Amino acid sequence: MQTVEVALTGRSYPIYIGDQLLERGDLVAHHLPQKRAALISDTTVAPLYLEKVAHALNASGVAVTPVVIPAGEQHKNWHTLNAVFDALILNRCERKSTLIALGGGVIGDLTGFAAASYLRGVPFIQIPTTLLAQVDSSVGGKTAINHPRGKNMIGAFYQPLAVIADMNTLNTLPGREISAGLAEIIKYGLIRDVPFFKWLEDNIEALVARDSTALAYAIQRSCENKAEVVAADEREELGERALLNLGHTFGHAIETGLGYGTWLHGEAVAAGMVIAARVSQAMGMLKSADVARITTLLERAGLPVAAPDFGLDRYMELMGIDKKVEGGKIRFILLRAIGSAFLTADVSAAALNTALAGSAANV
Amino acid sequence: MQTVEVALTGRSYPIYIGDQLLERGDLVAHHLPQKRAALISDTTVAPLYLEKVAHALNASGVAVTPVVIPAGEQHKNWHTLNAVFDALILNRCERKSTLIALGGGVIGDLTGFAAASYLRGVPFIQIPTTLLAQVDSSVGGKTAINHPRGKNMIGAFYQPLAVIADMNTLNTLPGREISAGLAEIIKYGLIRDVPFFKWLEDNIEALVARDSTALAYAIQRSCENKAEVVAADEREELGERALLNLGHTFGHAIETGLGYGTWLHGEAVAAGMVIAARVSQAMGMLKSADVARITTLLERAGLPVAAPDFGLDRYMELMGIDKKVEGGKIRFILLRAIGSAFLTADVSAAALNTALAGSAANV
Repeated sequence: MQTVEVALTGRSYPIYIGDQLLERGDLVAHHLPQKRAALISDTTVAPLYLEKVAHALNASGVAVTPVVIPAGEQHKNWHTLNAVFDALILNRCERKSTLIALGGGVIGDLTGFAAASYLRGVPFIQIPTTLLAQVDSSVGGKTAINHPRGKNMIGAFYQPLAVIADMNTLNTLPGREISAGLAEIIKYGLIRDVPFFKWLEDNIEALVARDSTALAYAIQRSCENKAEVVAADEREELGERALLNLGHTFGHAIETGLGYGTWLHGEAVAAGMVIAARVSQAMGMLKSADVARITTLLERAGLPVAAPDFGLDRYMELMGIDKKVEGGKIRFILLRAIGSAFLTADVSAAALNTALAGSAANV
Repeated sequence: MQTVEVALTGRSYPIYIGDQLLERGDLVAHHLPQKRAALISDTTVAPLYLEKVAHALNASGVAVTPVVIPAGEQHKNWHTLNAVFDALILNRCERKSTLIALGGGVIGDLTGFAAASYLRGVPFIQIPTTLLAQVDSSVGGKTAINHPRGKNMIGAFYQPLAVIADMNTLNTLPGREISAGLAEIIKYGLIRDVPFFKWLEDNIEALVARDSTALAYAIQRSCENKAEVVAADEREELGERALLNLGHTFGHAIETGLGYGTWLHGEAVAAGMVIAARVSQAMGMLKSADVARITTLLERAGLPVAAPDFGLDRYMELMGIDKKVEGGKIRFILLRAIGSAFLTADVSAAALNTALAGSAANV
């Protein structure tokens, strides 16, 4: 087992990465202020792991209330959140009872927001079971639900007490979900870590094939990158954390435009990163050879690199309600080079149009 | 104008208390990170003050989106919150746009939670227009909505940038609302401020008659008391802040039992404080003369001192889902003397029964 620390004043917490950690009730138990927890999972993950985790927690003296919600991004909404609140209240969960998220990004985001707002905040632990959740969404304290008009519009910055990433859960994951996780892993290389990007170019097939040594390194390096960014700019106030959104402005537009759940989040981010690279190229900042390297790596990871052809106007409309809007201008994260991202509000419609046309032509 | 400072590391903020502050757009404007705000009010307060405040803000260069929601505690729920989110999204409010709450406790609590969770947190200013909101709910950062099974079950600790208490708004307030505010004012004397309690005994008729000098002092002293408690224990983790809930465990039970909005919050708290005093007496801690002093002062303030006769079982049931439950035991705030409150989980059913029977007998 490896441990990556997220360093936040007064609220630092560990990310445990390793094999068979679901069986380690003790890992969870020693973080709990009260030996009571609600274990929140969904209809996909619960049949696989809920009993195992509940059993391990019971063996460590923790009383567990299981709460199972419907699986899928389309259920990451107020209706499902309220069902969780109902279960917590009916089971008399208290201020020191802990909510444990067992599942992918949807479960983590929704459970985290439930923990942030139930009784104005109760303790919270993440047990991510998808690659994407292990390397991205479970780390850093961003929690949210979707609004019909935009993704993650309602939420909180709320840090967990611990994150427990059991790599064995990746064995039951569909290949498409592994690829979606690789999109966020590649993102860390693109925005701030050239050696890691090169390592990914050398090891992408091993990762797709779920080689456990390669996956362990990729998860650890991703969590280290994310932990550094979050420690420097927890609430996305300084610009540093915003760089983690490379490809996400376009990605969210794709997800909203297609309807949540049609593409996986990581798939939309992959296509979004290609658009961001093409915009960077159209503005004369990124070499075409680098755009090709990025596109090739994403393709080798089994990811879509062509965005849906909504047209510029529809993309603009979809992006206009993105959270990263400031002073009426849309802020984009672009690339100066592989390993060097920056934030700008200075993107011309012409560059956007060129990038989108170039991307759609690939379909 | 007087200013009381709420001292919180990195997030200290002023409470401005005075006359004709609604006209002071500059007071608000200088706190805004972006000259854009959504002004949230309800169908009772908006016709009185919304135009005045919006005009003053415009004159200070602030663009204002007005959002008017239905008045009343029964609307402090997810449905109304979502209507606010809809308006914010439709008007493209951004991360640096500020939400301004113009109204009583319901508006402040709901707007505060909207600000805490919209885009994971946007700036927030309180303009409380009721006495209760000016001395209690607008100060300290507790925000929430109700759940059908309990009051304030869903919310956040989220501090405003400033609180602006314009005493002129009290002139349009029904007498019952003035009394409700006095319940919370008397509470500060009861839990931690004997000189203030004595001052209240000497000045309660002046307060009921809205004497502006008396009100100004009562509001200032209440805010100072609350600011000290909040600075010492912002998130109610140390027990200090919990003392502010004197009368509230019973008060919430009364509100839930009667249905939200039947009694005003301050009225339920008044009857709840009498029960707390009687429980303290039944347990041999508080003198009967002090119970009489408390009851008399509340009565002179125009407040109910007899709780609805639900019976012990129903009260226990109603209190079992209160937020202040820990380890399955109900925590009560009791009185050792006037000016000295403490928190205990050690209350016998017999003492509760005696107190409730004594109170109901008063009806």
